[in-house]
Amino acid sequence: MSNKNVVTLKKLAKELGVSISTVSRALANHPDISNETKARVDEVSKRLNYIPNLFAKGFRSHKTYTIGVIVPDISHYFTATLIKGIMQEAEINGYKVIVSESKNNEYKQAEMLQTMNQFGVDGVLLSLARTTTNFDEILNTLNIRPLVLFDKVSTKVPCTQIVIDDEDAAFRAVEHLIQLGKKRIAIIKESEGSFNSEMRYKGYLRALNTYKIEVDESIIMNAVEISMQQGKRLTTVMLSMKNTPDAVFAITDTLAIGVIKALNNNKISIPDEIAVVGFSNNISSIIIEPKLTTIDQPGNKIGEIAFRYLLEEIKSDSKLICKTVEIKTNLIVRDSSFRTASIDISL
Amino acid sequence: MSNKNVVTLKKLAKELGVSISTVSRALANHPDISNETKARVDEVSKRLNYIPNLFAKGFRSHKTYTIGVIVPDISHYFTATLIKGIMQEAEINGYKVIVSESKNNEYKQAEMLQTMNQFGVDGVLLSLARTTTNFDEILNTLNIRPLVLFDKVSTKVPCTQIVIDDEDAAFRAVEHLIQLGKKRIAIIKESEGSFNSEMRYKGYLRALNTYKIEVDESIIMNAVEISMQQGKRLTTVMLSMKNTPDAVFAITDTLAIGVIKALNNNKISIPDEIAVVGFSNNISSIIIEPKLTTIDQPGNKIGEIAFRYLLEEIKSDSKLICKTVEIKTNLIVRDSSFRTASIDISL
Repeated sequence: MSNKNVVTLKKLAKELGVSISTVSRALANHPDISNETKARVDEVSKRLNYIPNLFAKGFRSHKTYTIGVIVPDISHYFTATLIKGIMQEAEINGYKVIVSESKNNEYKQAEMLQTMNQFGVDGVLLSLARTTTNFDEILNTLNIRPLVLFDKVSTKVPCTQIVIDDEDAAFRAVEHLIQLGKKRIAIIKESEGSFNSEMRYKGYLRALNTYKIEVDESIIMNAVEISMQQGKRLTTVMLSMKNTPDAVFAITDTLAIGVIKALNNNKISIPDEIAVVGFSNNISSIIIEPKLTTIDQPGNKIGEIAFRYLLEEIKSDSKLICKTVEIKTNLIVRDSSFRTASIDISL
Repeated sequence: MSNKNVVTLKKLAKELGVSISTVSRALANHPDISNETKARVDEVSKRLNYIPNLFAKGFRSHKTYTIGVIVPDISHYFTATLIKGIMQEAEINGYKVIVSESKNNEYKQAEMLQTMNQFGVDGVLLSLARTTTNFDEILNTLNIRPLVLFDKVSTKVPCTQIVIDDEDAAFRAVEHLIQLGKKRIAIIKESEGSFNSEMRYKGYLRALNTYKIEVDESIIMNAVEISMQQGKRLTTVMLSMKNTPDAVFAITDTLAIGVIKALNNNKISIPDEIAVVGFSNNISSIIIEPKLTTIDQPGNKIGEIAFRYLLEEIKSDSKLICKTVEIKTNLIVRDSSFRTASIDISL
């Protein structure tokens, strides 16, 4: 599995005096790269006899029938559903799966990619660490074996990417509240905006805008971390306002559960006085009373599709596939936004 | 990492006409094996120049600083806490961790052990698949690298084992209900008794016995699967009895949450009419109202300790450590068994 004798992206980048990322994207015909740069990369790669990904793949003889999965946090509920989807689909196709964690640390992520490469896995499924700014090891991996990004992705990596349509999902969640007659809708997002939080915030703003509701900065709440405590604390802040909101959209269920706990403690009627909508469809969303209206993210399906695209690349010797697949979500309406019956008949 | 030229446990077993398990346990001086057999194994292993584990370990030159973890179900909440504990301790010690899943299938488990061996991990942490009856691949692995069992264990494998003291924990849960004045305590256990379910049932019986409470077969309920639905269904059955129980001990939180849901729907006062105690301290146990009294299983700690014992074996060339470590649990008293205040001040 050593690539000491082959020209790597790194060598090309050094020869050209540009970043590995630029070389990689130029070779993948990425729109961000100028035609001039593409021509230079093309010339140098031919001169140095660079063997691109697609051919290198054909040369790999030793198949391990094992794929590596790297995720930011293995113990996160949604991540567990992603892994389940990957494993199910892998098993159907006779592949083994080994999983590791980056702990949202890009150095640990690079280390785990190296480990996966040393082990000679047939391909890698990667959900990016939040802090990733250096893509070298990812691009190096992409150069020697198939790699597909899922859930946490970046346009800086020229490969197939499987994502949730967060913006659209948030738009529909807020639209649902507006259609129920809510006029003063708060949002609880992350203060250090993750990619997902920012996309959901964007969907929130688009919904208000579409329905001509003015954005009120005072009810755009920032959680310093994702926890029930934060949801509870920010609700206490909102309840102390002169003009309290009549609905809260929390960008994740954990925060929304904290909101419901705080409203219950303050004997605020849900959804009549204040409606609550979350995001994720965690198991907790049907344990809390009233049950939480939320966005169902089909983690199993995302994992399944990510594996399928990876397998296609593992099997194919001819062509680098490179597209973004957006998976649609579902809005699950429950009692926290719209009470359908007074007696609980379901679990 | 090939062991083609070395005498394996398998060869010894064949030569001796006994099982691999017997050879392995004889070499580990296991009390189940007769002295006569031990002497025979000793003679043959010397004659064939068998290199036992402890020496083989010293010969391993290529360290990957990676350990393999195999668990029945990676997406299970408690398993996630175990993995987290392992990963934290591994990181402190400069080790990488790769995780895989057996799906409670012994063939898949053997396959993943082979994969870990091919990858040349420095050691393996294994939580056994429920169905495991054939231990050959496990014993083979134990022959070539350190292996520690955790959570789901078996006396058939002569190695260090890290477990929860399930029986003791269940005893204390039921004792707590008795001390609160409850006299008719039901249990919901698994119909296809897993090792954990059986140990908890044993603790339940011991508590009733200790406090001279007669066992009533009609309130020993069997769940066909671990789900909220099952907890709910079995509660409906109990509520239809002439002589309903005044407390329910469910062997896992998921079942207990179903019990609370059913009692809430039937407007039964918890804990006055019926108290409920679970087992696991899942996140759900503080989301449900009333909050669930439960046994906290310190998954992080078990993972941490399992890694430490494995590391000790990886580093040691001199001696095969082989002991069982029982981790104590804590009873967390909440409103489902004993209401301390009418207002919820905590999350």
